[in-house]
Amino acid sequence: MHIGLVGLGKMGGNMRTRLRNAGHTVVGYDRNPDLADVDSLAAMVEALPAPKVVWVMVPAGDPTRSTIAELKDLLGEGDLVVDGGNSKYTDDAINAASLAEKGIGFVDCGVSGGVWGLENGYALMYGGAASDIEKVQPAFDALKPEEGGAVHAGPTPGAGHFAKMVHNGIEYAMMQAYAEGWELLEKVDIVENVPAIFESWRHGTVIRSWLLDLLTEAIEDDEHLEALRGYADDSGEGRWTVQAAIDNAVPMHVIASSLFARFTSRQTDSPAMKAIAAMRNQFGGHAVHTDPPPGGEANPDA
Amino acid sequence: MHIGLVGLGKMGGNMRTRLRNAGHTVVGYDRNPDLADVDSLAAMVEALPAPKVVWVMVPAGDPTRSTIAELKDLLGEGDLVVDGGNSKYTDDAINAASLAEKGIGFVDCGVSGGVWGLENGYALMYGGAASDIEKVQPAFDALKPEEGGAVHAGPTPGAGHFAKMVHNGIEYAMMQAYAEGWELLEKVDIVENVPAIFESWRHGTVIRSWLLDLLTEAIEDDEHLEALRGYADDSGEGRWTVQAAIDNAVPMHVIASSLFARFTSRQTDSPAMKAIAAMRNQFGGHAVHTDPPPGGEANPDA
Amino acid sequence: MHIGLVGLGKMGGNMRTRLRNAGHTVVGYDRNPDLADVDSLAAMVEALPAPKVVWVMVPAGDPTRSTIAELKDLLGEGDLVVDGGNSKYTDDAINAASLAEKGIGFVDCGVSGGVWGLENGYALMYGGAASDIEKVQPAFDALKPEEGGAVHAGPTPGAGHFAKMVHNGIEYAMMQAYAEGWELLEKVDIVENVPAIFESWRHGTVIRSWLLDLLTEAIEDDEHLEALRGYADDSGEGRWTVQAAIDNAVPMHVIASSLFARFTSRQTDSPAMKAIAAMRNQFGGHAVHTDPPPGGEANPDA
Amino acid sequence: MHIGLVGLGKMGGNMRTRLRNAGHTVVGYDRNPDLADVDSLAAMVEALPAPKVVWVMVPAGDPTRSTIAELKDLLGEGDLVVDGGNSKYTDDAINAASLAEKGIGFVDCGVSGGVWGLENGYALMYGGAASDIEKVQPAFDALKPEEGGAVHAGPTPGAGHFAKMVHNGIEYAMMQAYAEGWELLEKVDIVENVPAIFESWRHGTVIRSWLLDLLTEAIEDDEHLEALRGYADDSGEGRWTVQAAIDNAVPMHVIASSLFARFTSRQTDSPAMKAIAAMRNQFGGHAVHTDPPPGGEANPDA
Repeated sequence: MHIGLVGLGKMGGNMRTRLRNAGHTVVGYDRNPDLADVDSLAAMVEALPAPKVVWVMVPAGDPTRSTIAELKDLLGEGDLVVDGGNSKYTDDAINAASLAEKGIGFVDCGVSGGVWGLENGYALMYGGAASDIEKVQPAFDALKPEEGGAVHAGPTPGAGHFAKMVHNGIEYAMMQAYAEGWELLEKVDIVENVPAIFESWRHGTVIRSWLLDLLTEAIEDDEHLEALRGYADDSGEGRWTVQAAIDNAVPMHVIASSLFARFTSRQTDSPAMKAIAAMRNQFGGHAVHTDPPPGGEANPDA
Repeated sequence: MHIGLVGLGKMGGNMRTRLRNAGHTVVGYDRNPDLADVDSLAAMVEALPAPKVVWVMVPAGDPTRSTIAELKDLLGEGDLVVDGGNSKYTDDAINAASLAEKGIGFVDCGVSGGVWGLENGYALMYGGAASDIEKVQPAFDALKPEEGGAVHAGPTPGAGHFAKMVHNGIEYAMMQAYAEGWELLEKVDIVENVPAIFESWRHGTVIRSWLLDLLTEAIEDDEHLEALRGYADDSGEGRWTVQAAIDNAVPMHVIASSLFARFTSRQTDSPAMKAIAAMRNQFGGHAVHTDPPPGGEANPDA
Repeated sequence: MHIGLVGLGKMGGNMRTRLRNAGHTVVGYDRNPDLADVDSLAAMVEALPAPKVVWVMVPAGDPTRSTIAELKDLLGEGDLVVDGGNSKYTDDAINAASLAEKGIGFVDCGVSGGVWGLENGYALMYGGAASDIEKVQPAFDALKPEEGGAVHAGPTPGAGHFAKMVHNGIEYAMMQAYAEGWELLEKVDIVENVPAIFESWRHGTVIRSWLLDLLTEAIEDDEHLEALRGYADDSGEGRWTVQAAIDNAVPMHVIASSLFARFTSRQTDSPAMKAIAAMRNQFGGHAVHTDPPPGGEANPDA
Repeated sequence: MHIGLVGLGKMGGNMRTRLRNAGHTVVGYDRNPDLADVDSLAAMVEALPAPKVVWVMVPAGDPTRSTIAELKDLLGEGDLVVDGGNSKYTDDAINAASLAEKGIGFVDCGVSGGVWGLENGYALMYGGAASDIEKVQPAFDALKPEEGGAVHAGPTPGAGHFAKMVHNGIEYAMMQAYAEGWELLEKVDIVENVPAIFESWRHGTVIRSWLLDLLTEAIEDDEHLEALRGYADDSGEGRWTVQAAIDNAVPMHVIASSLFARFTSRQTDSPAMKAIAAMRNQFGGHAVHTDPPPGGEANPDA
């Protein structure tokens, strides 16, 4: 098939390659002319046969919104926009409705796989009308892993991004699970050679997984991860997953805790724990403002 | 090699089979004569050539302790006991010291794999002196999966059970991660066909794992898990993991929360939430004892 | 002062009484004619001298929004609307901007105190321009407790509701703290007479508080809270607090957990724990669908 | 009454004063001769009339154990030892049984109040036989607050320390509740003058408490707590509370999270979060070892 691809960064660039390797014709556009096949969105659209299919692979939020707004001007009845970025699922209904005003179809598609996707394929979770999905199906087939890895999550716009969002929420908590276990093993004297323990877990255990493979590889290179700081950003998906849980009265202790652990990791000093320290100082009947930290003796939990 | 095996339940029985399939000579003893090869521990020990190696595969706690005490009487200098059950790591130092009084060696070994182990091999995490491990190495080689899956976690007695314990703690939190994600997907209208989403996640995603395979299989059989109750026992390992974390000042939000979720799942009514309801009723200035539950209107969070 | 009061339910009705007791002239309107002083919003507005001050005390969301929309039609330049309900802080900017189009001022005010407020006074947290607050200050002075209990949280619309929202978030976690402690004391044999322990804590301890007083009173009436179900609704404030924390990257483990505990309390069966049960069953190599729950023996944490 | 008091630090010294103010005769012993009334335990015991009552107020663990062992030698039939320190409740049964061998009674007593106790009285939670408690009742009456504040938690040794332990667990979570709320208010722009908000909460709100008074006082002195580090020690009681919860299958999300937050506060870098960072780096297909922290762009949650 012919497909337009907007956004040729690490993800988009590799996806272009994988699509081309499968025999598809990709017209790529990026603001960076070194990456782009054409020099404007209009030129990209111009180069596509009808019905025109354009895959948007730019950062969520304003960049995606403005790209889709431009495409609305350029495309027409029967054409299709696929949002393959990390948009919040609530954006999809808005984008779909806007494009529908001109008869342009919309499919949202969560994409997982990182740089491994070029070789192994990308996991795809997409939402939208079956008739729209049909138009982009050849691209999905080229992008996905050889076996499985693609799912039509539902006809409602946002179904795909919602599924991908939950995927990422689960990911946060799985990572935290391994991380907590690793910290405990690192801390105690009773076990030795923690990397060998992780390596052994990769086979025959209940907890074997791709994330375990990754962590094992990392600690085989740097046993105590001395070259790293205990700092983790979070992308929007973890936050949105917890917000969706709250909106739906779903208890979500572990995913939420994993998110909070990332927040904490980025603080150089915790305001909340300052407040704890302040209360403990007051137990003594007077504020003891100290740095270094107050000793346990002088600040009992009265 | 020749090996004595005490405890021929689901796990022990399958391990006997896998050991025999590898060409080893197993003398099995179980209190249940239908399962046993010999009719007493003494007969089992008698049947083994020196140095005698006995693998204990009975429930943790008293059964393991009393079995090891009997073996101490029956074995001698240079013999070896392997505790392959789910003993708490702190028991191992005690058992090792006791057996050492007679020159009997001790190896603790955490075993993972369930009924899948017979075919795929058991993941093994063991602790003890290298000279002791050498004596049972052929059995380890037969039991473990073809690739990897076995690790000498350290020379200190309990190292193996400690590693296995942390494995199970991680397992609790991973299961909870999938469970929370599944509940959210089940709850919302935006996605459809949740089993297909899980199936798709098995390939190319960050969260692919053996546990994901299991959950996918379950919900493909029974989409909403209607035949199951939301009830989960916990074995000791999850508790011990959190206790070890507390002893070592290791933050363990997600594993602890996963354990607590299991506790909650077994309560028909939550005492803590009764206390919450009681306080909310008091906001109204008087206790309103109700069943059915108090409505939100009458019990605002003042 | 003269003040219009819309919404004469439990809260609004008592506030009218407290305002009148302080010598103010209150014109109350409620959809329920048995409670109202006048038979329409228009009649209420008509009865007020300029600048007219109207206090809205109706449920958050649509009822508040539509009441404020009607008042916008009825009021004019220099008049003032106070939203004393439990509105989400993000609604306040919208309402303030809308009223400002006609030169009508807006103050948001979080109110705490429940039925105790009539006698003890209501804690008030308000936001808005100082010139607007001045117009309603006499009412604030009448409603608040004798000492303290009132704060101008900031000039931005929503500041008052935000402060009240965080108050409620803190409240959730404090209640959960007592509830968890109570459950543990109830569960163990080592202590007796738990109500006496709580009663004793009311004096001289670190954890003495008004909530402790309430819980103590409840368990003195019904030691094991047998007349209550462990069920707790949540009003919006707890959810909004956690959402605001997430928006601001603030770790909020205990308030979030308290909210989740309420969600769990309202489930008759936990979907998440069904998923856990499903995975544990799969360890056995086949799905065992059971009711009553699967025993620990047959479903080890492999 | 006459009473021996071992340990005259901040707590013990003030308790001696309060006992003397109530007209009791206190013979105090401390290893520090500047604090002591006598120069040995033996001299202290010698100075007491029968039945001799000795209150031990030394650090939990070895110091308490060895003091009680010495007292066992010095006291006899009908005498009484009170352990007023922060001993773990499981120690009490051991100490009681040991003293009982010589007919010496034992009472365990958890004491709350800090330096405020001298003036306001100490909250007391005690366990032991009624006949033993009777012997020390006059001291309890002198130490406790004017109203309430003392409870016989049960006849089993350890009942008092158990109740005090749970008190401290609740305290941890209450402190964390205020701390989280404070951090959120500090973080957002919508509210101003956070100390005034806290001050207002002290009257008429649901969350008023002694801890709130303490925190308010602290932030009135130092609005942003700039002079403090976000660092909090934990005494044993929080850990023991969670361990007891685990032993009794009691879900304890908020108290456990509060404990973990203290652990985290003492880490300069989080090993668990290093592991998270390591996995995120691997998403890129290769380990990027960085300091400063990896940016969000390069390390998406694939």
